[in-house]
Amino acid sequence: MRNEFHETLDSLAVDLADMCGRTSVMMHAASGALLTANLDQADRLQLDLKRLTGLGNTVHDRAYSLLALQAPVAKDLRTVVCALHIAADADRMGALAAHVARAASRRYPDRVVPDDVEELFADMGATAVELADLAQVTVQTGDTMQARRVCDGDDRMDDLHRQLFTHLISPTWRHGVTAAADLVLVGRFYERFADHAVEIARRVYFQTTGTQLSLSADPMPPARPLPG
Amino acid sequence: MRNEFHETLDSLAVDLADMCGRTSVMMHAASGALLTANLDQADRLQLDLKRLTGLGNTVHDRAYSLLALQAPVAKDLRTVVCALHIAADADRMGALAAHVARAASRRYPDRVVPDDVEELFADMGATAVELADLAQVTVQTGDTMQARRVCDGDDRMDDLHRQLFTHLISPTWRHGVTAAADLVLVGRFYERFADHAVEIARRVYFQTTGTQLSLSADPMPPARPLPG
Repeated sequence: MRNEFHETLDSLAVDLADMCGRTSVMMHAASGALLTANLDQADRLQLDLKRLTGLGNTVHDRAYSLLALQAPVAKDLRTVVCALHIAADADRMGALAAHVARAASRRYPDRVVPDDVEELFADMGATAVELADLAQVTVQTGDTMQARRVCDGDDRMDDLHRQLFTHLISPTWRHGVTAAADLVLVGRFYERFADHAVEIARRVYFQTTGTQLSLSADPMPPARPLPG
Repeated sequence: MRNEFHETLDSLAVDLADMCGRTSVMMHAASGALLTANLDQADRLQLDLKRLTGLGNTVHDRAYSLLALQAPVAKDLRTVVCALHIAADADRMGALAAHVARAASRRYPDRVVPDDVEELFADMGATAVELADLAQVTVQTGDTMQARRVCDGDDRMDDLHRQLFTHLISPTWRHGVTAAADLVLVGRFYERFADHAVEIARRVYFQTTGTQLSLSADPMPPARPLPG
């Protein structure tokens, strides 16, 4: 009986890692679409999101069954409850990737991302994909060092997010309000994607250690304009 | 034993409703600060958020204890697991209110919100407060009709969010990129605040009925500019 229980726990971890892996693939595709004004990805990612949500629902149902039928305690209980939260975080990461893909088509045939912030958005995309990959490894291994690496990656994303605001409010910004409005939203999607990767890492950390992983400071853009 | 268990369940609902009520008060204060460029609220709301998070942590710990010691099933199990999620959603609503208050001080002594979108932001603030109040009543009563009213309120918020984008990308917008960038972010905070109220309503609906509350369509701004 306990063996079957632990097999189900293991299968939950496999599916959660799979969910994280899918958000990585989705964000990779979305970021590519953003830099090339690719219309097709928006619909494809909507489908991917449906499948991701479906997978999340099966995790949810199995976690519920475990709670109801096996009444786990201590670390096993933490693992099951964390699974519920991680599924929700990964699902949200998928939704944010789909938002990026959708934003990519907003000014078609023009690109949403002007040349002078292309590298910045490429960095945000690469960082987001790396964070989802790290979250996947963290879920697979339960390794607290990997969990810390996710937090470091998030610090990098926060820095990129601040750089974006510096660009947008600089007197040299020459792409107008519409482009800026689009990019603020897209930047926010990346930042939140990273935050959810951190949430996943924190939950795995808690699951492994029973204690909370402390975070570095505030992810919000600065209250006053940075020097341009 | 069962009595004590149900008393603890009741006390969870009381604390969750209290959390929703606090997010309403916080968002009311934050929205006021936004329209008056009040610097003091940002620090006050940071304190309020700390208290809210503390309350959420006690809900979390008690829900865990219930799972570990009482092994609830069926509707009781749904209630305990929903409590974990609702506490997380309410905590996030508080964080978003704190973000709004912080954004309010971003252009001090100027206001972040120009005159011609003041009414729009006043509406967003009022809608957000109403949604938090409705979420509170939904949690208190478990009433599925109230849960549906939260979804209706969210539709109104999505509509206001779309109106904001229409303003920002209109040729008549005369407040420049910095103001637009601030307002996109603040608008997003309001929209996400409403989304979390909906999440709470959906969880209560699931807790009461064991089935999912279906939602209306997409909360994202339109892919193409609306007519100004």
